[in-house]
Amino acid sequence: MARRAQSIDALIAALNHLPGIGTKTAQRLAYHIIDMDEGDVAHLASTIVDAKHTVKKCRVCQNFTDEELCDICRDPTRDRSTICVVEFPKDVEALERSHGYHGLYHVLHGVISPSKGKSAEDISIDELFERLRTEDIREIILATNPTGDGETTALYLSGLLKNFDLQVSRIGYGLPVGGDLEFYDEVTISTALENRRILK
Amino acid sequence: MARRAQSIDALIAALNHLPGIGTKTAQRLAYHIIDMDEGDVAHLASTIVDAKHTVKKCRVCQNFTDEELCDICRDPTRDRSTICVVEFPKDVEALERSHGYHGLYHVLHGVISPSKGKSAEDISIDELFERLRTEDIREIILATNPTGDGETTALYLSGLLKNFDLQVSRIGYGLPVGGDLEFYDEVTISTALENRRILK
Repeated sequence: MARRAQSIDALIAALNHLPGIGTKTAQRLAYHIIDMDEGDVAHLASTIVDAKHTVKKCRVCQNFTDEELCDICRDPTRDRSTICVVEFPKDVEALERSHGYHGLYHVLHGVISPSKGKSAEDISIDELFERLRTEDIREIILATNPTGDGETTALYLSGLLKNFDLQVSRIGYGLPVGGDLEFYDEVTISTALENRRILK
Repeated sequence: MARRAQSIDALIAALNHLPGIGTKTAQRLAYHIIDMDEGDVAHLASTIVDAKHTVKKCRVCQNFTDEELCDICRDPTRDRSTICVVEFPKDVEALERSHGYHGLYHVLHGVISPSKGKSAEDISIDELFERLRTEDIREIILATNPTGDGETTALYLSGLLKNFDLQVSRIGYGLPVGGDLEFYDEVTISTALENRRILK
């Protein structure tokens, strides 16, 4: 079989590394990119680099932002006594879309996962406890996903939180076990929030 | 709902423009990219720009290549009396994977599509007829896809080819009508090639 141009192979390989992009899709995207206008290709490449360079973590909640402090942390209308702890920024977006929550967030940027060699030090747990010392928090909602690692992380956090004078709840199971917050509709997410059970 | 960082929005929008990448996938990819190592992000962006810059069309068959002449056109073992005419470079790859063809190719980079405002001048038809004048071609296999536009293009080409002393065939229908070469298995493609019918 004829050799493909090396730079096409390199592009297909790089795209193939992205999550959910298989070889066929990577190939289709690569050929599409080569057929795009020069300007559009430059734009695509620069948005990738820009996003990586300008996006940082909010000093307080660790959500992605292009400011020192994210919009939610700066919003004076939010309930500042509740923190909803999630795995990733996309989970904040899913919860915001549900319009069922008006408190603050804390983004862990991962879960404790022994199978993937991820421990408590690899995610933003220290930053969460720092907030408990400096902010006036009365409730923590643990909204990690209802997967094995999500449950492990919630259990670990609820253990550490026992020593603090605040209410700790786990997001309600309106979600099928094994699922991912990102893919649920607004009503399911709202219901799950309402049905949260108190852990302590 | 909280405002998302502008550079994330820009990246999501750019990814969303790629074929088959919906809003949800674009968002998932964007967050993944932001979480990637700086080096990997730079590599991804540069492969995109590199592929666009270094890939050009083969002077003869118009397939993508990083040389003046593509591997297939330079290969002395190929049957140089037959040209298989396809819509896109990905179709060359699909045919090569079938191992059912050992002649040369000609890539049109599109089809005649009145509904999309694409006429014969917009695809590499002139380049094909230039080859008929300079190369010793005895058969043309029209392997545009079995879709409306693919049939229109094959019909248009077979009309023009009537004046040439060569055999013209249409790739055999082993393929379901409305399909796309890219998605068929090797056996289906080989069979379709064997069953090609002579148009003139």
